[in-house]
Amino acid sequence: MANELEWLAFDAKAVDGWIDKWFQLKSEKRIIAANLIEAMAYASLNGGKRMRAGLVCASARLAAKYSDRHPENQAIIVAAAVEFLHAYSLVHDDLPAMDDADLRRGVASTHKKFDEATAILAGDALQTAAFEVLSGPELELSFEKKLELVGSLSQAAGVSGMAGGQMLDLEAENKLFDISQVTEMQFLKTGALITASAVMGGITGGADSSMLSALTRYSKNLGIAFQIADDLLDYRGSAMQVGKPVGQDSIRGKASYVEHFGLDGATKKAEEFVEKACESLHDYAEHAIQLRSIANFTINRSY
Amino acid sequence: MANELEWLAFDAKAVDGWIDKWFQLKSEKRIIAANLIEAMAYASLNGGKRMRAGLVCASARLAAKYSDRHPENQAIIVAAAVEFLHAYSLVHDDLPAMDDADLRRGVASTHKKFDEATAILAGDALQTAAFEVLSGPELELSFEKKLELVGSLSQAAGVSGMAGGQMLDLEAENKLFDISQVTEMQFLKTGALITASAVMGGITGGADSSMLSALTRYSKNLGIAFQIADDLLDYRGSAMQVGKPVGQDSIRGKASYVEHFGLDGATKKAEEFVEKACESLHDYAEHAIQLRSIANFTINRSY
Repeated sequence: MANELEWLAFDAKAVDGWIDKWFQLKSEKRIIAANLIEAMAYASLNGGKRMRAGLVCASARLAAKYSDRHPENQAIIVAAAVEFLHAYSLVHDDLPAMDDADLRRGVASTHKKFDEATAILAGDALQTAAFEVLSGPELELSFEKKLELVGSLSQAAGVSGMAGGQMLDLEAENKLFDISQVTEMQFLKTGALITASAVMGGITGGADSSMLSALTRYSKNLGIAFQIADDLLDYRGSAMQVGKPVGQDSIRGKASYVEHFGLDGATKKAEEFVEKACESLHDYAEHAIQLRSIANFTINRSY
Repeated sequence: MANELEWLAFDAKAVDGWIDKWFQLKSEKRIIAANLIEAMAYASLNGGKRMRAGLVCASARLAAKYSDRHPENQAIIVAAAVEFLHAYSLVHDDLPAMDDADLRRGVASTHKKFDEATAILAGDALQTAAFEVLSGPELELSFEKKLELVGSLSQAAGVSGMAGGQMLDLEAENKLFDISQVTEMQFLKTGALITASAVMGGITGGADSSMLSALTRYSKNLGIAFQIADDLLDYRGSAMQVGKPVGQDSIRGKASYVEHFGLDGATKKAEEFVEKACESLHDYAEHAIQLRSIANFTINRSY
């Protein structure tokens, strides 16, 4: 497992390096809100798994096997944009009016480290940064592809995607959802951005429409597996491993996969979805090895 | 004055209509956060002046006089995107951790009408919606132009623009700024988006680079005039006219143009900047009449 995933750590490092450089360049402006830059950097360079970045890079590499593209550097930039978007959602999710989380990945959440106003603005500006990066000159792709990337990310992030899912998730605290509703809600909240990551990687690497469909099927199944694995971690984990107080979601009384299927049943479900995800890539044989390893990592991770 | 600005009310109505339709189409999805849509619509359809929308449309019309484009419908869509972005910034600005404003344009601010979590998400999703609209299929412009629009808006809105200005503005509560620092800070907070509106309108209408430069000079001066006029309203106005408790900014003790120049001096300054704005459009003679009327409106408005 460890060896199979060396590339993930390698990509994570490259993306972190690119993000760090981006903030450095911003800092050199004459008039700049230094405190805001610091909060944005804090929120986006805090040692996340970079699973979404890994998906972008691995999908771009898969696509490149079948196209004439060498997307390595471009994939890192696209991955940075996706991670900016993801970081924004975490900063706002942790706010007192939302999940009210003091910790994120074992350290103070952004509003605890700075203050609430700074965290709100840092999240806002991280979202903007995602679109600034995708439309900026550093990303050397055609206008058409860059616009497709902006479209994919904005559709995944907005009211019909992630933000809508967050809203439904908040409302779920006072409602009883059945398991299919939970699955759909979770797909919006988490799955939409995971799917966009794989698809955006494909676009970056020059995937044709049949590969984009395969990547979509793969990542939709991966997204559900990821969410079930999160539920399982929530039940099994310790505060140290997941980096936030455990059992929080269950305290709020939301329906979850574990509640519905039991521990063993949910574990089996997660494995089934990973299997389905990998089957979607059947046509690409050994070229899809990184995407398969990320799928297995999703349910075997301890954080 | 009233007659000169009929087009502004007309454009505002067209943009409101487009925004309303956009939310209706979203509402028809099977799984959707209805409450979030409602909050987004509340925040973006609350009878604003639509000055930014007017700038987009008027600039597009000016550009169209010198190009082979008929940008009317496209300008409305671009204007809607800018107004989404503007609405997001107001929703988040009003939050308790930010300006803590209970009223916006005479009615309950979004977090008062709904709740804080919903307002945070509504602002987030309104920002995303801006980029979704600019990259979406409804906007019939070339990939290159659409990407330019995404780039202009994201640069104006992010850490080097509006969000950075908001951060500096919050910090200004505990600092003494001189008038040139106030001007630069206000340019980021308000002027960047006003400038982007004019430039984006120009791009939509097919402006060449010399017209885009003129529109930039025009709107930078307009932005400063707008801010001074806001300061003047803050000192002179009544709660009913500006739709929020007056004197708030001064209570927090920020430096302002009025404090610096006095009432008469600030009024004169605002007029000078409007004059400079109009001079920037000298080459375009009577074709720039709408942009001139919007500049005059900026300092003569009572709200």
